[in-house]
Amino acid sequence: MAAQTPGPQREIRRRNLSRVLYAVAQQGPSSRAAVATRLGLTRTAVSTLVDELLRGGLLTEQGPAPAAGGPGRPGTALALPDSGPCGLGAEIGVDHLAVCAIDLRGRVRARAEADSPGRDSVPDAVLTPLRELVDQVAARARELGLAPAALAVAVPGLVTRGTATVVRAPNLGWHGVDLTPPLAEAGAERDPLPLLVDNEANLGALAELWLSGGRVPRDFVHVSAEVGIGAAVVLDGALLRGHRGFAGEMGHMPVHPDGERCACGGRGCLEQYAGEPALLRAAGIPADGPRAAALAALRQSAASGCVRALDALGTAGGALGLALAGTVNLLDPRALVLGGVLARFAPWLLPSLERELRERTAAPGALPELLVSELGADGPLLGAAHTAVRVVLDDPLAYPAGRRG
Amino acid sequence: MAAQTPGPQREIRRRNLSRVLYAVAQQGPSSRAAVATRLGLTRTAVSTLVDELLRGGLLTEQGPAPAAGGPGRPGTALALPDSGPCGLGAEIGVDHLAVCAIDLRGRVRARAEADSPGRDSVPDAVLTPLRELVDQVAARARELGLAPAALAVAVPGLVTRGTATVVRAPNLGWHGVDLTPPLAEAGAERDPLPLLVDNEANLGALAELWLSGGRVPRDFVHVSAEVGIGAAVVLDGALLRGHRGFAGEMGHMPVHPDGERCACGGRGCLEQYAGEPALLRAAGIPADGPRAAALAALRQSAASGCVRALDALGTAGGALGLALAGTVNLLDPRALVLGGVLARFAPWLLPSLERELRERTAAPGALPELLVSELGADGPLLGAAHTAVRVVLDDPLAYPAGRRG
Repeated sequence: MAAQTPGPQREIRRRNLSRVLYAVAQQGPSSRAAVATRLGLTRTAVSTLVDELLRGGLLTEQGPAPAAGGPGRPGTALALPDSGPCGLGAEIGVDHLAVCAIDLRGRVRARAEADSPGRDSVPDAVLTPLRELVDQVAARARELGLAPAALAVAVPGLVTRGTATVVRAPNLGWHGVDLTPPLAEAGAERDPLPLLVDNEANLGALAELWLSGGRVPRDFVHVSAEVGIGAAVVLDGALLRGHRGFAGEMGHMPVHPDGERCACGGRGCLEQYAGEPALLRAAGIPADGPRAAALAALRQSAASGCVRALDALGTAGGALGLALAGTVNLLDPRALVLGGVLARFAPWLLPSLERELRERTAAPGALPELLVSELGADGPLLGAAHTAVRVVLDDPLAYPAGRRG
Repeated sequence: MAAQTPGPQREIRRRNLSRVLYAVAQQGPSSRAAVATRLGLTRTAVSTLVDELLRGGLLTEQGPAPAAGGPGRPGTALALPDSGPCGLGAEIGVDHLAVCAIDLRGRVRARAEADSPGRDSVPDAVLTPLRELVDQVAARARELGLAPAALAVAVPGLVTRGTATVVRAPNLGWHGVDLTPPLAEAGAERDPLPLLVDNEANLGALAELWLSGGRVPRDFVHVSAEVGIGAAVVLDGALLRGHRGFAGEMGHMPVHPDGERCACGGRGCLEQYAGEPALLRAAGIPADGPRAAALAALRQSAASGCVRALDALGTAGGALGLALAGTVNLLDPRALVLGGVLARFAPWLLPSLERELRERTAAPGALPELLVSELGADGPLLGAAHTAVRVVLDDPLAYPAGRRG
């Protein structure tokens, strides 16, 4: 995988190598013929690309491929390797940290979690243990024959487009925190790994797009809650980032303009009705202990028919319906996807949510499809790890398996 | 411009011919060398393309071109012709009809207007006079040596993506009206013209994008009012249409959820506070006469400091600010553009609009640029006519000047 060919040719080769890897990633083990058909390339061209990827360790050969339906000798099946480059994903939650490594096949191979000091701690109090966690997972990955190739980090805040700077993470109390210095060497054995930092809602939406097996379409709005509420808009398979990178702040869409004061400076923001603290408060459940316990208590109250819990969830669903009605009127998406805590409480949120949506969308005909995420709380972490894997799939010339981070 | 080359080559040729036309359209009269530089093509390639366009009458040569800064003999300047194919644009307003023809240079060459029977008339009562108006303008264009090549129509309603069907135009009382049969032969001398139908707010936004001379950036949200309120989202120079074609219904974003009932079935929609009828009602100005007179009266009241008029405009501006705050939080656009009636009343709308926007946008730093359209009420009509011209610029092989519609 030397880079001796001139620029434009190298770029075409890089792109075609990448297309072969994505074809195998999406189809599963495939013959050369199946890859050629899918990509609209000749079998000769695909064979040349495949040979290069086999030499670089970015593809492996397995037993005979599933019948390709065409003439010619039965080929062996091409598969992505379970060794070689891997992606590291990390999630900074308000009260927890999580890191995982996934191989090129997309399987989680190593994982570690820890509590986080949480709100209003200095960034280093969070980033030092995060770095240790990344190093642990990277070391375990290397023991398994994997080579961490990139690190992507999900944060509960706004990240300036194209940078690693968290300009504002209200639930952490962070303003203008550049993650590059504290994480520059995280997970690295020698050279620093490429570091990508993105909003957790963005990465959660990408996880839906990439991992739902087609259940989630390529045009949707994803809304999720952890402590805050975040959303992401995906158009034709691409994330809408916005001019500065701040798109998707649905938590601060005004739903009751004269309502509760919000930390953002506004009033009656969605987060004041459907965010986790608002929900727990309305349901009368103390929120000063661990989040998991409070959420379990809310779930139990709702399941046992407690009127106060059901009212709180109904109010939250109605507020979500208002914000989503505005969103649907503005964007006409094909689907809406509820993720994170919203997915967990969907049975109790959906009736009032759907009622508002039905009454307040101007366009005739069917509403967008309303889907509930099946990724649980792991969406942002998996979205981050897959983002790191895609750094390899996007540029196979830069990450031959033999080169270790 | 015969079509004897095989498919893919013909497609590349078509695309390059189109790029040359857009280069001249955007740069104004240009030398071959300047076109070659702009497009990154060789001068030989550009000369071949230019010769074909000159033969087809889609380019003309003028006196010496502005100095190209490079060596070689001074060329003549290439320009778009003021004869040959032209675009027809039409606008169906609630109480008026307008049609114009523009040449490839983008200049309006013929124009006609008429009152429309307006609200709750049967579609034919509007479409028959519209067709006559289109025929008049097309005949006048032919007298001037122009050949109408396509007709684009702006409607105050929702149009299903990729069709000519108005699924809902509440201010006309239309539901499911296909414009193809009544307008199939409008403006045509022999064969029917290609017919494009789009929402007026979409075409108004495209006019801002194409005609502002760079004042409006390539990422913006355009919000305009005539009788209703419409909006359009432009991302990286392309209109966001939405899954069904219904994006941009900002008029029905809920701003005061328990507020006034709206014809859409919702409550407290933006249109109930910032739409023209709501505005006139709040200002105490009778809305049963001609729209122009009522709007002039509102303007005069505001200019003379009438408290009731100023309050009405302040309330409308605040409601717009609420809807735009939600929009900015969701999409993080680079600019917001006020068009139509909103542009005319901008001085009185902006203070409360900007206050809401400042207080309710979550992301730190500068707000999107707030621009006021300079196209007046003509945006949708010009957007339609330029859409029709682009049908020619997009596919020069199909519209040589010698071939008349």
